[in-house]
Amino acid sequence: MNRRNLFGAAMALLAAIGLAGCKEETPAAGQGATAAKAETFHWKMVTSWPKNYPGLGTAAERLAERINAMSAGRLTVKVYAAGELVPALEVFDAVSRGTAEMGHGTPYYWKGKVPAAQFFSSVPFGLSTLEMNAWLSKGGGQALWDETYAPYGVKPLSAGNTTMQMGGWYNKEINSLDDIKGLKIRMPGLGGEVWTKLGAITVNLPGGEIFTALQTHVIDATDWVSPYNDLAFGLHKAAKYYYFPGWQEPQAVVESMVNQKAFDSLPADLQAIVVEAARAATLDMMDDYVFHNAKSLAQLKEQGVTIKRFPDEVLAAMKRESQTVLEDLASQNDLNGRIWKSMKTFQDEATPMGEVTEKELYNWR
Amino acid sequence: MNRRNLFGAAMALLAAIGLAGCKEETPAAGQGATAAKAETFHWKMVTSWPKNYPGLGTAAERLAERINAMSAGRLTVKVYAAGELVPALEVFDAVSRGTAEMGHGTPYYWKGKVPAAQFFSSVPFGLSTLEMNAWLSKGGGQALWDETYAPYGVKPLSAGNTTMQMGGWYNKEINSLDDIKGLKIRMPGLGGEVWTKLGAITVNLPGGEIFTALQTHVIDATDWVSPYNDLAFGLHKAAKYYYFPGWQEPQAVVESMVNQKAFDSLPADLQAIVVEAARAATLDMMDDYVFHNAKSLAQLKEQGVTIKRFPDEVLAAMKRESQTVLEDLASQNDLNGRIWKSMKTFQDEATPMGEVTEKELYNWR
Repeated sequence: MNRRNLFGAAMALLAAIGLAGCKEETPAAGQGATAAKAETFHWKMVTSWPKNYPGLGTAAERLAERINAMSAGRLTVKVYAAGELVPALEVFDAVSRGTAEMGHGTPYYWKGKVPAAQFFSSVPFGLSTLEMNAWLSKGGGQALWDETYAPYGVKPLSAGNTTMQMGGWYNKEINSLDDIKGLKIRMPGLGGEVWTKLGAITVNLPGGEIFTALQTHVIDATDWVSPYNDLAFGLHKAAKYYYFPGWQEPQAVVESMVNQKAFDSLPADLQAIVVEAARAATLDMMDDYVFHNAKSLAQLKEQGVTIKRFPDEVLAAMKRESQTVLEDLASQNDLNGRIWKSMKTFQDEATPMGEVTEKELYNWR
Repeated sequence: MNRRNLFGAAMALLAAIGLAGCKEETPAAGQGATAAKAETFHWKMVTSWPKNYPGLGTAAERLAERINAMSAGRLTVKVYAAGELVPALEVFDAVSRGTAEMGHGTPYYWKGKVPAAQFFSSVPFGLSTLEMNAWLSKGGGQALWDETYAPYGVKPLSAGNTTMQMGGWYNKEINSLDDIKGLKIRMPGLGGEVWTKLGAITVNLPGGEIFTALQTHVIDATDWVSPYNDLAFGLHKAAKYYYFPGWQEPQAVVESMVNQKAFDSLPADLQAIVVEAARAATLDMMDDYVFHNAKSLAQLKEQGVTIKRFPDEVLAAMKRESQTVLEDLASQNDLNGRIWKSMKTFQDEATPMGEVTEKELYNWR
């Protein structure tokens, strides 16, 4: 008899000598002591981030810690950095196949396989952080996201948000639309498509290659995230200007992907823990970015970084082209169309409320 | 031998026949099956809200449901509406005494007993929703809040946020500072003190009495929350004008208070569940307000509500007086001074980041 069988036998003995009676009095205690409940699960979480990368890698670790703590170790989650088990951009596939039970990334990384995923990361000139969370959890967004990932056996959960990003790092000034023509810029996702339409040459590079590409003038400019992460990569040492606003990512969802079969195999309490830990992680990451961006922006200014705003003419053109790019994506198939319609409708509804609240606050303080 | 003792004896037997060995292999399973872990806890949560009041009462119910679900019923929380066990404004006392293990309210309700609590609800022209959460969880705010409630044996946790509120409902137009003189307005908290300094006659009334007081002209104006809650009270049927912005509450924390001894008596996993459920509830309430405010503002407009903005002259005076009111509160004692300094320092740090992100977004979309 191995130890697991011994444990099962002990639990059966326990049931025989009085647990049934105990259950009548305190059903929860009974549940807590059944053999099924005492079963443990050991999960792997593969991520798209370097080990303990500020804000992202650390958030994956804290999500795992929360699940471990709330489940008293009945569900342990071990976090793997990008490349340890699978490369950064193969996280979705690994969760889909069941190589790992969980993944931590951002939806637009899987756009080659799931074009609709892009809507669930960020949309240029789209929903704010507060609005995106509201649309996902109350406005029908989650159901559409579930539908998008369901064919791959993956259950998506928001597990973080970077909050609004910056426009990026530039070695050329952007004073007019002419300055965009021929500009070599690293910008993935929908934002990159907008730049392409305006005449830029866009490339995608993994985060770790950005610094060198900028410094050696292989690229003229790059987006990354915001002061917290940009400072960590030292991008201010490779570029002259730090541009705002981050029109391309007014918020950016970071997700916890869960293999649906693995999720279904959990008892209800552990399922609730996985879902609520992700919800708590979403707020925790927002807090982390808001706090550290404030500190890091001040540090960048101390180091003499020149902060510039895109001219209105350029922002207007980006906004116009963003609509085209989004309508194109929406027209690709029925699901894309329904997602974009739902999201756009909510943005139209939420904007008047933002006008009389957050807009006033940020203009008035 | 009663059933509890029988259960304990069974667990001891279980330990004797092999659990110690099992623990070495899978410590979590061992933990999950100890007698301490199977103990159940039945808690009461008293609240400051009417039963199922939209956004607030419903949030308390969902918080309890989350705890019940994640603990598999090992910690059940039963929610009591205001007045069922204790009146709305005695929730803090009830948790402090241990009459209830948990409470759900907002810190400024306890200002008569704990003046510093006011900082933890909302500050006029103060931190935004995103910033307040960040200050609490990353910027030292939680430690100061813990210190504020510790003498009363109460552990505070953020468990929601209404997001930014509206300026309130008025039967008189506010075109200049002269219109404030003699205005009878229901406004509690720091905002009310600012109005008093500007010559208004401020009163406090429980939510349920506002409608009648407005309709019968006992008061000329009132604040409440935002479209979601204001529509639920029908305030648009008793007042002519809906003013913005809600300078007095640019965000408002809703809290979960936990009796410290009750919290300490929980095993670590249930403690983690109580803490993380509150964190998840914070985001969930933000989502609820952002979603329903958008819908409710549209409904109010459909019903012909006139929406007006406070003139710049009035906002400038409110901002000036707010600083005086806050400095007065800060000067009352050392703790108040430290809280205000920490919060103000963070606001000064966070504002430049808001300038290049959220402010741009809300102005540009």
